[in-house]
Amino acid sequence: MIDETPGPDIDRVITAAQVAAEALATTTPAERARWLMATADALDKAAADLIPVAVRETRLPEHPRLHSELVRTVFQLRLFARVLEDGEFLDAAVDHADPDWPMGPRPDIRRAMVPMGPVLVFTASNFPFALSVAGHDTASALAAGCPVVVKAHPGHPELSARTGDVVAEALARAGAPAGTFGMIAGVQAGVTALRHPAIAAASFTGSAAGGRALFDIANARPRPIPFYGELGSVNPVLVTPGAVRKRGREIVEGFVGSFTLGAGQFCTKPGLLLLPAGHGLDETLRGAVESVSAQAMLNERIADGYLAGVDRLREHPCITVLSGPELGDDPFRPTLLKVAAADFTRAAAELGAECFGPTSLIIEYDGDAELRAVLDALEPGLTATVHAQDSETERVRALLPTLTRLAGRLLWNGWPTGITLSWAQQHGGPYPATTAPGFTSMGTAAIARFLRPVAWQGFPDALLPPALREDNPWALPRRIDGIRVTGEENER
Amino acid sequence: MIDETPGPDIDRVITAAQVAAEALATTTPAERARWLMATADALDKAAADLIPVAVRETRLPEHPRLHSELVRTVFQLRLFARVLEDGEFLDAAVDHADPDWPMGPRPDIRRAMVPMGPVLVFTASNFPFALSVAGHDTASALAAGCPVVVKAHPGHPELSARTGDVVAEALARAGAPAGTFGMIAGVQAGVTALRHPAIAAASFTGSAAGGRALFDIANARPRPIPFYGELGSVNPVLVTPGAVRKRGREIVEGFVGSFTLGAGQFCTKPGLLLLPAGHGLDETLRGAVESVSAQAMLNERIADGYLAGVDRLREHPCITVLSGPELGDDPFRPTLLKVAAADFTRAAAELGAECFGPTSLIIEYDGDAELRAVLDALEPGLTATVHAQDSETERVRALLPTLTRLAGRLLWNGWPTGITLSWAQQHGGPYPATTAPGFTSMGTAAIARFLRPVAWQGFPDALLPPALREDNPWALPRRIDGIRVTGEENER
Repeated sequence: MIDETPGPDIDRVITAAQVAAEALATTTPAERARWLMATADALDKAAADLIPVAVRETRLPEHPRLHSELVRTVFQLRLFARVLEDGEFLDAAVDHADPDWPMGPRPDIRRAMVPMGPVLVFTASNFPFALSVAGHDTASALAAGCPVVVKAHPGHPELSARTGDVVAEALARAGAPAGTFGMIAGVQAGVTALRHPAIAAASFTGSAAGGRALFDIANARPRPIPFYGELGSVNPVLVTPGAVRKRGREIVEGFVGSFTLGAGQFCTKPGLLLLPAGHGLDETLRGAVESVSAQAMLNERIADGYLAGVDRLREHPCITVLSGPELGDDPFRPTLLKVAAADFTRAAAELGAECFGPTSLIIEYDGDAELRAVLDALEPGLTATVHAQDSETERVRALLPTLTRLAGRLLWNGWPTGITLSWAQQHGGPYPATTAPGFTSMGTAAIARFLRPVAWQGFPDALLPPALREDNPWALPRRIDGIRVTGEENER
Repeated sequence: MIDETPGPDIDRVITAAQVAAEALATTTPAERARWLMATADALDKAAADLIPVAVRETRLPEHPRLHSELVRTVFQLRLFARVLEDGEFLDAAVDHADPDWPMGPRPDIRRAMVPMGPVLVFTASNFPFALSVAGHDTASALAAGCPVVVKAHPGHPELSARTGDVVAEALARAGAPAGTFGMIAGVQAGVTALRHPAIAAASFTGSAAGGRALFDIANARPRPIPFYGELGSVNPVLVTPGAVRKRGREIVEGFVGSFTLGAGQFCTKPGLLLLPAGHGLDETLRGAVESVSAQAMLNERIADGYLAGVDRLREHPCITVLSGPELGDDPFRPTLLKVAAADFTRAAAELGAECFGPTSLIIEYDGDAELRAVLDALEPGLTATVHAQDSETERVRALLPTLTRLAGRLLWNGWPTGITLSWAQQHGGPYPATTAPGFTSMGTAAIARFLRPVAWQGFPDALLPPALREDNPWALPRRIDGIRVTGEENER
């Protein structure tokens, strides 16, 4: 296991971040884009060194998993460089003085986003690259202009340390101030850091219990700070009778592939499959599950938690085991369970909670009333998926308000695992999906978590930040007197 | 005092809001704009009935105060109608499927904002129209498509009830669903409502103690919700030596006018004035303060809190009283106090807290080192103001990173009271200014508090929300494949 960073070292790392924050606040987006590109290049070069360490520490397969995860990680850094070049993240608005403003004369007032300050990033175990030291939270916080203090995950300590070295060196060479990036390790160190007065925001991806505990600590500070926790999700998938008839076998294949991918250790794993009663797919499901072999779990803690969770489900009186390891089998062979909708609805608190690992629960519903009752019994989550035929559009339309209330991302005839990163991605949702439903932890909009707005009233042009100067030196898209103007139009 | 709404009535109001939420989520921005315009018109018509009630309950002067506040309130409603017509608040993004996306093939994914659900609005005592029943929070939440449950302020119960009737009737006539607007009263009712599972977000303007208590309750829920608390601020004003020399008398007049306005009962009251030692303005300050007569305080609770706070300050060994009521005078005559910078820095926790009422504290600083020490000892707040000459630009530039860290709005040669409402307004800041530093509680951006993003992946056009359909029926500005496109350009 990883050593705990001693108290004085935590303070030194965070104080360095605090000093760096002032320097970072005056850097240009173009400078920070270069840092991110340099970090991406350095990770590309270090791939051959890092991947074997990741294989050893996480037990994840090198091909295709870890290679494609590193591609994703490097892509993320470059995507945030694009966000910085685009400039809209600054949300710049200029309202000129207006003596005729209807509520009374308006002074000149201008508003733009500034970095929040040092960000504490709690890394995840299940994406040792993409949600870890150089991962999505780090990329988006650095893009925002915030120094980052990473709390390394104990599941991959050596990989964390080595990745940290690559990031720190790349940032330093690219000209980022000392203190822009730092790292600590250990559970208690993470808590100490979260309570440090110089930390301005924190992000977390992990379990509901761990995330809630940290959320409570962040809120109990004398000065509470924003805590962006992504706590997991059960990700229901609803299949209509029409879809079963037309594509039953194909849906089964997609479903089993999705819930067993990476040994089910994804926050977007489909944990519930709602099938119409009489679907006739039991044998197909059983065959598909039995063709998937056991995979290693990320670490002992997750393995133990999974076994306890899946045992609890198997032993529940309403649950039937469709397929799962027998006594003497590898206990991490996928487990597929089944329950009747009415039983599920009565016991949703127990049966509808996330079980992190290679298991999923089929809920058989008999008609729309039972289906609705199941949906109404669910907690909000990250995703909700519908498999339906185009001819069933109106039936699905009636369910959309409920699904929208339940999730941050809705999918049609797809599978929730495999999250694309783009401008329109949304990875979040009402609690317990996340602790901050107004934000996303993936995709370009994730930068907004680490920014806060500031207005300048009546300032001389020479003292305004460049984003708000009259001649718009960065050629930003801005809102001027209420009208959106593109960068080209308002450059002078 | 106001009666406590009984538990069953609270539940009835919130359940009605929950039912309305689903209907509201499918209304168009244009519909909601009409509701806001209708509410504004109704308030305009009711002015002659409402203002006398406000005068009686709040002791605020009818002219110009309450009349101009009603103008502001009506303006706010109409401003949010403009936000709805503009459409950018939906932040619509369309990423078409892209087989060549660098991280791997991208599905079609589209993202837009949806309303959070029923919003609980804790109203303020000091703006009985603009931050009360039909105030800024109500306007921005309705604009977002959220039903509003108002917790009426006990400082103006009859005005709250009458305003509530005007709003409810205007909304109903304009076609808003039943349950769109509801009202409750009483401290315990507010807490009960805040814990109600159907409430999706809450907003608050008031004291630090009250706001923190409610923030803690919102976070302690089984499912925590966003709590947007505006808890107040001390609003430092820094005056440079050059500004004292050139405009000392004018600054004194502006300062005294600002801190005594409305008996100092504004969250933007300048509570600290930093003057260079040897300013020679004591007599001018004394004269200006003594020319202001006592005004009635809003209510007993605020009056008592003010007297206790100002007594504590007066009795502090480092404080000199420049001007204030003598024994036998009206105790609400303005009080101006003075302290040396070094003394203030040592006792900033006691001396730098907000004292809500007609008092302010002069801090005399001797040189830039003392000035910096004072600024470093301050808690963040809503505003920070600089009075300086253009020739002192570089000196001020060096202070701007500190001032930016300290406040959500910076002012140059102005006064923080009298907040304009526009696209660029920012009323917020790091805790304790607010509990959510990424947001504003005033200005058009305040609508973002009550929205959350949702992505639709792979959906057929017929099932997408109008904001995301390929033909863009609402002619919204959208981001398409990463490029910002105006409403006109992408209408087909």
